[in-house]
Amino acid sequence: MRGAVIHGKGDVRFEERVDPKIQAPTDAIVRLSATCVCGSDLWSYRGLNPLERPTPMGHEYCGVVEEVGSDVTAVRPGQFVIGSFFASDNTCPHCLAGYQTSCVHKELVGGAQAPVLRVPLANGTLVATPELPDKSMLPSLLASSDVFGTGWFAADAANVKPGSTVVVVGDGAVGLLAALSAKEMGAERIIVMSRHAARQKLAREFGATDIVSERGDEGVARIRELTRGVGADSVLECVGTQESMQQAIRVTRPGGSVSYVGVPHGVELDGRQLFYTHVHLHGGPAPVRRYLPHLIELVLTGKVSPGKVFDLTLPLARVAEGYRAMDERRAIKALLQP
Amino acid sequence: MRGAVIHGKGDVRFEERVDPKIQAPTDAIVRLSATCVCGSDLWSYRGLNPLERPTPMGHEYCGVVEEVGSDVTAVRPGQFVIGSFFASDNTCPHCLAGYQTSCVHKELVGGAQAPVLRVPLANGTLVATPELPDKSMLPSLLASSDVFGTGWFAADAANVKPGSTVVVVGDGAVGLLAALSAKEMGAERIIVMSRHAARQKLAREFGATDIVSERGDEGVARIRELTRGVGADSVLECVGTQESMQQAIRVTRPGGSVSYVGVPHGVELDGRQLFYTHVHLHGGPAPVRRYLPHLIELVLTGKVSPGKVFDLTLPLARVAEGYRAMDERRAIKALLQP
Repeated sequence: MRGAVIHGKGDVRFEERVDPKIQAPTDAIVRLSATCVCGSDLWSYRGLNPLERPTPMGHEYCGVVEEVGSDVTAVRPGQFVIGSFFASDNTCPHCLAGYQTSCVHKELVGGAQAPVLRVPLANGTLVATPELPDKSMLPSLLASSDVFGTGWFAADAANVKPGSTVVVVGDGAVGLLAALSAKEMGAERIIVMSRHAARQKLAREFGATDIVSERGDEGVARIRELTRGVGADSVLECVGTQESMQQAIRVTRPGGSVSYVGVPHGVELDGRQLFYTHVHLHGGPAPVRRYLPHLIELVLTGKVSPGKVFDLTLPLARVAEGYRAMDERRAIKALLQP
Repeated sequence: MRGAVIHGKGDVRFEERVDPKIQAPTDAIVRLSATCVCGSDLWSYRGLNPLERPTPMGHEYCGVVEEVGSDVTAVRPGQFVIGSFFASDNTCPHCLAGYQTSCVHKELVGGAQAPVLRVPLANGTLVATPELPDKSMLPSLLASSDVFGTGWFAADAANVKPGSTVVVVGDGAVGLLAALSAKEMGAERIIVMSRHAARQKLAREFGATDIVSERGDEGVARIRELTRGVGADSVLECVGTQESMQQAIRVTRPGGSVSYVGVPHGVELDGRQLFYTHVHLHGGPAPVRRYLPHLIELVLTGKVSPGKVFDLTLPLARVAEGYRAMDERRAIKALLQP
């Protein structure tokens, strides 16, 4: 088969790869119905993550099970399934506590920008839909595999409740879906920090009540103004830089919560600053598996349409153009059709 | 009057100070029944906090109201009162959210190692007992002013619940009372990290089920062993150094909580480390005022005896000896009798 492989900065190729096969009795082989490019893939594309060798890319997926190992009982060939970017056994203490991305047997799922994918620990990782979904549902189901689940975790980890005042830092797909998640959890006010017209529009569609285009000191001042000097109850940091983290901490009210869901790049926190701001801090790789059954239900019942973040659809063979469009911020997120 | 004034490293003097007087209509003047030396006073005593001028010391207090300003209605002369180290109006949004130590009008209460103290914002700051307490209650009521309230916040901020597995890092008065607080909140297992026999004994009396004397990698290994490889649900960091914070983060289970209640000195947190540990982090100057009514009730009904942390009692005039004894770890905490 052919799939996406990154060779270096800006160099993603659609090329021949070994066909995935069952390697362990807990594996499943899934024929993908849709896959996509993640904002986090851009760290490698931009040369900001070290790359030791050419690496198959992609970790968001949904599709139909083709084959399962002898220990797999939770899903069977022919079922439509969605999984998360970390495979997890869903039985260890960390999984049972809802932190499947810290599973003691966790394994990164890689190479999903391809027609076929091997998913380890299939029993714990994959969630099947009741029936084969309509094609129109694919974008939203695919989004649940990562960006929707990650946005949902951002809202949950920042303790969003009915009536909350929420700030979202970052207008990528995760930030936009964090706004949608906050709306779904009953937030009253959702302020999204964004400078891009198309993203602002989608943010409002997803539930944003206010858009703040200022950044730094001005952004902080604007949000203080919007919250009558108090600060926000919940601030969802969906970028992963020092600047965005500082922005988040500085607009949170004392006793409020900051969540952070993007892998931090160069983030250093001063203990004394955190101490005197009185914020709650929680984040990490989103345990999407915890939320998947609920998110799939929200999608299949038509309550939410997280798939709207895909504003570019390409045949898988044109995956490199998906990276380019996202890197240049011409697209929010590119869906790839195998 | 005469009170404690620090002049430099290791130099605390009992010397003449101006008598406190009502300065604002919201002030109260309190004649202290007992006061004490705080672990945090040692930062200055050890020369680790910059000192611009000779400074009156002490911020823990309880006693009888002598005089109140014209706006004070919550307490009256003759009542026995306890307050926290930060005066707060208890009406601003941060106070109403339970974060009185982030009150928009907050004011540090200083110079409490003296016979008489001026307390600003008396309406919001002071809590009166129903009647004049028995002398035997003074140590525990005094402890509620700071160390008990701070230990309680440590347990609350780390989300201690019935059945929790708790680790306390630090065996100072706050750490010991954090153990007592965790016990009171229903923790099942309370592991205290301590190397001092007297403190270990008191920790057990307060509810510790296990003592770990190892530190660093060995301490982490020992706690992993005690928690069957999982880590603790709640870790209460009661020191404020980089070493103790790292110790705390490293023994917390993914999804567990770390609280920190000592002013951080040189603490820098790596965003990526925090991200992959999946811990909740919350701390700051303990909003003792939030808990004071409950703590006073626990003390007066005899349910807890936090005053046991005072293992040295001195006349106020010998305050310098109190500092020395605590600095040399000969005493856990020194109570001073004005």
